Amino acid sequence: MENTIYILDLIGTFVFAISGAICAAQKKLDLFGVIIIAFVTAVGGGMIRDVLMNSHPMCWMNDTNYVWVILLAVFVTFLFKNEIGKLSKTMFLFDTMGLGVFTLLGVQKANLLGFDPVICVIMGTISSVMGGVTRDVLTNRIPIIFQKEIYASACMLGGISFLVLNHFNINEHINFAITLLVVIVIRLMAVKFKLRLPVIKDNLLGRD
Amino acid sequence: MENTIYILDLIGTFVFAISGAICAAQKKLDLFGVIIIAFVTAVGGGMIRDVLMNSHPMCWMNDTNYVWVILLAVFVTFLFKNEIGKLSKTMFLFDTMGLGVFTLLGVQKANLLGFDPVICVIMGTISSVMGGVTRDVLTNRIPIIFQKEIYASACMLGGISFLVLNHFNINEHINFAITLLVVIVIRLMAVKFKLRLPVIKDNLLGRD
Amino acid sequence: MENTIYILDLIGTFVFAISGAICAAQKKLDLFGVIIIAFVTAVGGGMIRDVLMNSHPMCWMNDTNYVWVILLAVFVTFLFKNEIGKLSKTMFLFDTMGLGVFTLLGVQKANLLGFDPVICVIMGTISSVMGGVTRDVLTNRIPIIFQKEIYASACMLGGISFLVLNHFNINEHINFAITLLVVIVIRLMAVKFKLRLPVIKDNLLGRD
Repeated sequence: MENTIYILDLIGTFVFAISGAICAAQKKLDLFGVIIIAFVTAVGGGMIRDVLMNSHPMCWMNDTNYVWVILLAVFVTFLFKNEIGKLSKTMFLFDTMGLGVFTLLGVQKANLLGFDPVICVIMGTISSVMGGVTRDVLTNRIPIIFQKEIYASACMLGGISFLVLNHFNINEHINFAITLLVVIVIRLMAVKFKLRLPVIKDNLLGRD
Repeated sequence: MENTIYILDLIGTFVFAISGAICAAQKKLDLFGVIIIAFVTAVGGGMIRDVLMNSHPMCWMNDTNYVWVILLAVFVTFLFKNEIGKLSKTMFLFDTMGLGVFTLLGVQKANLLGFDPVICVIMGTISSVMGGVTRDVLTNRIPIIFQKEIYASACMLGGISFLVLNHFNINEHINFAITLLVVIVIRLMAVKFKLRLPVIKDNLLGRD
Repeated sequence: MENTIYILDLIGTFVFAISGAICAAQKKLDLFGVIIIAFVTAVGGGMIRDVLMNSHPMCWMNDTNYVWVILLAVFVTFLFKNEIGKLSKTMFLFDTMGLGVFTLLGVQKANLLGFDPVICVIMGTISSVMGGVTRDVLTNRIPIIFQKEIYASACMLGGISFLVLNHFNINEHINFAITLLVVIVIRLMAVKFKLRLPVIKDNLLGRD
């Protein structure tokens, strides 16, 4: 199981890095910019989580496989730029899987460190979404995650599911699998049925 | 006195969170985006301060009251969106009070950890202003605090006042009260008399 | 040698702070905004590096000379705003030297802490470039370093040079000098010959 999680984590890192590289390329960044954006997209969420929880050293600083996987992702993006656009469904599936794995690892780590369940769910969500937020800040956009799609909500519900099953001492392997499934199924359904979170609509709040 | 400071801190968190939620709503973010922006506005300054001073765990990760206060603030913003606009004077007063409390807590913490007075004042200022800076970066604006109002200067003078009184062993309760007053009075006067800091006016520096 | 490095570090801090102050002044920020941007430009890269490596306290929090040098740089920028524009060649040389020193200090620190060589090179690069990246994010621009110039590449090659020479037990002073030279020469040549990194040119990746 540990190996499976590790491999899923690397695949998630790879796919997140590709999404970062594509985003950077659209903004006409050069090779260095593309690598940095791919990097923060892939490991930025975990970095912010680890800084907040004071958990050192961070995984990619201890295990350079993460660095190589990210560089590979940039290389693949440069090489197959024409093909990647056509693989959007495959990419979306891997991205959703990465989302699940990152949530799982974040909530599990916070739980092991003894944080309150509310904080654990927040840490799981930070792991999954803050990489994309940093990507969008660095490329001068309002983070897309703040504007559309049940993306973070899927992570939060996955995190809650993990904690509930963990509380009832469900077998860890089964818990991992169910948590992954919760995140993946909610996100797939959200996209299929175009679910979105409410927006404060009133205009009395003023405008800039 | 400790209880008073704690309650003022929670009120400050609440008001800062509302200011974040309003700002996010103006940018048409969805519920998740509003919560995140409310969150970083309220506790972002303290987080950056604690990361820099290596002080763990952070208050909101140890005391979930902060999390609930922020969620309550978002809820109140959604519910009373029409009324909040009319309460701008009340909001401004609470915001100024939050500013004072955050400055006080930051400079006191840095002082207890033995940092140089200059660093203590910087830490007090970071506590109060970096939440708003992060809010503005995440909503893709140049931080408003860099452009208008004697906002940070009030925090710096409050921090200096705290250290001077502390140096002369003034009773802690009196010191707390005076520091709060310094921040509040300076900000109120700055707004009343439209005081602003100077800007480098020359055009020879070029433009982008 | 240590003294030389310390003085070069302060000079690098000074020049980086001026570049931040100029950038902030162009965006019409007030005095406080200018100071903050000068500050993060000068010490932001080192801060991010130290947070990632969990190395505390940070140099500017332990040695207030850095704070005074930055304030002096802001003062000089306000005073000599007309002259600084004409000194662009001198500024560029000092900036390149600062780049070399920051890279050197970053890679050396990571190496002492026992990180993998790949991570050491990344830490050296983060020390030099993340200050400028933070400056650009706070002034609402896409980081310039992601778009033009062999800037980060010079840092990376300097970092690699340091590690290779260190591996062969070359005398430390000589190693320091050669690493500085590598960064400086590569950057000067890059600007002279207008070298740039490749950009992903295909449009099939889509646009925002």
